[in-house]
Amino acid sequence: MQQQLTRPGSIKNDHNHPENAEKPSNHHHDTLHKKKYRHPYKAARTVAHTQTQHILYFLHALCLLYQKHVPYHMVVTLQKTAYTTGYSKLTDAQRKGTPTMHIVIAPQSLKGSLTAAQTGEAIAQGVRAVYPQATTTIVPVADGGEGTVQALVDATHGQIIHQDVCGPLGEPVTAFFGLLGDGQTAAIEMAASSGLPLVAPDRRDPRITTTYGVGELIHAALDHNCRHFIIGIGGSATNDGGAGMAQALGAHLTTNTGQEIARGGAALAQLDHISLEHLDPRLSSCTFEVACDVTNPLCGPTGASAIYGPQKGATPRMIDELDAALAHYARIIERDLGLSVADSPGSGAAGGLGAGLLAFLHATIRPGARIVLDAVKLEEHLRTADLVITAEGQLDTQAAYGKSVAAVAKLAKRYHLPVLAVAGGLGEKYHTTYQLGIDAIAVLPPGPISLAEAMQHATSLTRDATERALRIFEMGRTFHKS
Amino acid sequence: MQQQLTRPGSIKNDHNHPENAEKPSNHHHDTLHKKKYRHPYKAARTVAHTQTQHILYFLHALCLLYQKHVPYHMVVTLQKTAYTTGYSKLTDAQRKGTPTMHIVIAPQSLKGSLTAAQTGEAIAQGVRAVYPQATTTIVPVADGGEGTVQALVDATHGQIIHQDVCGPLGEPVTAFFGLLGDGQTAAIEMAASSGLPLVAPDRRDPRITTTYGVGELIHAALDHNCRHFIIGIGGSATNDGGAGMAQALGAHLTTNTGQEIARGGAALAQLDHISLEHLDPRLSSCTFEVACDVTNPLCGPTGASAIYGPQKGATPRMIDELDAALAHYARIIERDLGLSVADSPGSGAAGGLGAGLLAFLHATIRPGARIVLDAVKLEEHLRTADLVITAEGQLDTQAAYGKSVAAVAKLAKRYHLPVLAVAGGLGEKYHTTYQLGIDAIAVLPPGPISLAEAMQHATSLTRDATERALRIFEMGRTFHKS
Repeated sequence: MQQQLTRPGSIKNDHNHPENAEKPSNHHHDTLHKKKYRHPYKAARTVAHTQTQHILYFLHALCLLYQKHVPYHMVVTLQKTAYTTGYSKLTDAQRKGTPTMHIVIAPQSLKGSLTAAQTGEAIAQGVRAVYPQATTTIVPVADGGEGTVQALVDATHGQIIHQDVCGPLGEPVTAFFGLLGDGQTAAIEMAASSGLPLVAPDRRDPRITTTYGVGELIHAALDHNCRHFIIGIGGSATNDGGAGMAQALGAHLTTNTGQEIARGGAALAQLDHISLEHLDPRLSSCTFEVACDVTNPLCGPTGASAIYGPQKGATPRMIDELDAALAHYARIIERDLGLSVADSPGSGAAGGLGAGLLAFLHATIRPGARIVLDAVKLEEHLRTADLVITAEGQLDTQAAYGKSVAAVAKLAKRYHLPVLAVAGGLGEKYHTTYQLGIDAIAVLPPGPISLAEAMQHATSLTRDATERALRIFEMGRTFHKS
Repeated sequence: MQQQLTRPGSIKNDHNHPENAEKPSNHHHDTLHKKKYRHPYKAARTVAHTQTQHILYFLHALCLLYQKHVPYHMVVTLQKTAYTTGYSKLTDAQRKGTPTMHIVIAPQSLKGSLTAAQTGEAIAQGVRAVYPQATTTIVPVADGGEGTVQALVDATHGQIIHQDVCGPLGEPVTAFFGLLGDGQTAAIEMAASSGLPLVAPDRRDPRITTTYGVGELIHAALDHNCRHFIIGIGGSATNDGGAGMAQALGAHLTTNTGQEIARGGAALAQLDHISLEHLDPRLSSCTFEVACDVTNPLCGPTGASAIYGPQKGATPRMIDELDAALAHYARIIERDLGLSVADSPGSGAAGGLGAGLLAFLHATIRPGARIVLDAVKLEEHLRTADLVITAEGQLDTQAAYGKSVAAVAKLAKRYHLPVLAVAGGLGEKYHTTYQLGIDAIAVLPPGPISLAEAMQHATSLTRDATERALRIFEMGRTFHKS
């Protein structure tokens, strides 16, 4: 009876203790429960002191398993007896057995404040506040837009390579690409070299902006021995059908006088011949995946010029000019390269860069989130997961259209995993996201707060919101009707 | 085998169906599970079609109960067999059995936007969005401050009675009291007749403000046959020790020339004699509970004048004057009424109204939240509850000091019930509230939002925040490690 006063856990490392000496082999149980699940009885036993307590732990564990079938008075009697033997000193978690969950954290970046990896780390901190024993794997994700290269680099432990290239208007810009952890995959955001934010609003003119810098980034990545490319093409300032990119990689696009055509979408009207004779030979052993969530064709009323031209500075007259130039470009591609790309879904993305990637680099176009999820091998991580937490700055109806939270949720549902989405804010019809496989949503603000303040404190808000959500989750997990 | 194609539920009302005819008596099970818990097997059976399916449902229900102990391959085989017999047409909820929970919703008001009852209704809407079958009981609560009368009236299905009385400066004001559902309890907030907001800032002068209106409200409630009184004394503009209240109820407080003393705290200095001869005789059969969370004595450095005088407009010189007057008042009370009230905890509350209530009405002083929780009979409701949801505008360290969310949580823990707190916003050290019995917290804002906007949309925000929280809760409830 003296031993009842021993502090919980104090005999855990005492191998000479008689209780420890006589404990049965765990091998069978461990295998069954994959060594991760802490069984109620086993949890209790780690703080067991006397034979009486051992029996009580076992009975209580049984009660928990069969709790709806044990008459109440029996539980009460058991608890009373337990109290007198010190059993009540155990915490609830010790009695019930805390599952040592494996949680996969697959967030997007919170744009303007945290990268996907930083968001994941903040979520992991929130997880540890509620489940100190849980294991977490942070898998940064992205949707092919801004932050995609960073997420892929972080997820694969790769690096960002900076590279001086030709900007949208021909001026030098310092762009970057991601050299992923496998050492042979490059991740490129076209906006890094040829994006709209690189052109001052009063200088925006899609007749002259070029994708030449994209080609230079690809070239630099080839020099780093990359042979697989993931290219995000959102946010372009260009309308040149990827002609500049092709020229940077050695293609010759010439006028009827044999001169290289000038850079920019308007000059495509002068294109007379395409030659791939001097195209970088390393490209023949490369594969290109283009992250693209739009399906616009190259030309026409839903084409590159008509739909995306205006935001790049095109007037209605310019749109007509650019659309005709792209149509001409497509005809020359078909004649000289034998490829019909004008009507391929996505060929009109990024001012026709989609078409250029198809024609010159035989790229495959896929939704950005899917490409990223494959690249970060999310599915492998999900196989051993018990719970998935994703995150996004704003959760709304747009989530259905190619955003990565929806892609994460869809993949998680293939493994029947519960999915929690942490969101900076919710759009009006955010309820629709529940149909995408997101089971529940936690939002960051801890009260009325401005966007600027929320962004400034994004790390602590993310941590705290995750903690609050998992406390609710734990309340549900340990819930049983009385 | 034809019957497998029958739609789920279609034989539910077919009493001639052979499956229904041969089903065993439920009586024993129902008693055991208090008729509320929908047993997995029973849930499944309501959509049972064939004998094979019956057996499968039973086996699956067993698996769910013993899920950590059934080898995985056995579950898979069972599921495959189930699939071929149509069992897989059941929803997860049908297989697992949805508990028809009883949720007690005991919120405070969200000050400035929703009453406690309105808050409760919004929470109930959120509950129904996740658990359509749950039963809810809304028990509005309060802490003795603003909103207490409304909460008590709503909780007991009583009514608000409006009454013209004497305001803090003697001007007429339309005040109110609550006639509770039992027809004999009155709930009064002193601030309704004698509160600080009734006096324009430039006219605040605790030397002349009076509690006369409080006495008039008590008088009016006596006329409505009230014999039990709950009095909230927060937010006073007065420093008269409750002398005005006593005079309104028939006490004579006279100077050495036999004149009634003037109203206000300063005039107490002229008090020479107290007579209760003409005190309203109905008071002798009344009981008074005073909701008060402070323990200040009547006089001295922690007394009514020194601590609360400044916010009522007292200058340091006035404080000395008022403190001396209250000390004199206490001496006369002790001499003429034989009661020593000056050092009773709370006698210094509301400018000494605490002392007056003790001296003239033999009131008992208790924390406001406790009085309210007793009055709304929260404990009775908790006996049948499975989950408790409380709410408050701002959740912070103050919650530990007499706020009703803490009182609700404490009472709920006596019944081992999980407690979710819904909060408009969180204070910096809100974590401390987890130690008060609050298991988890949900906050209202769905993203960055201003306080004004949050208050304007308080109903929908409360409903949505509750729904989001219970979705997380349900995710936890149905969680099991793979």
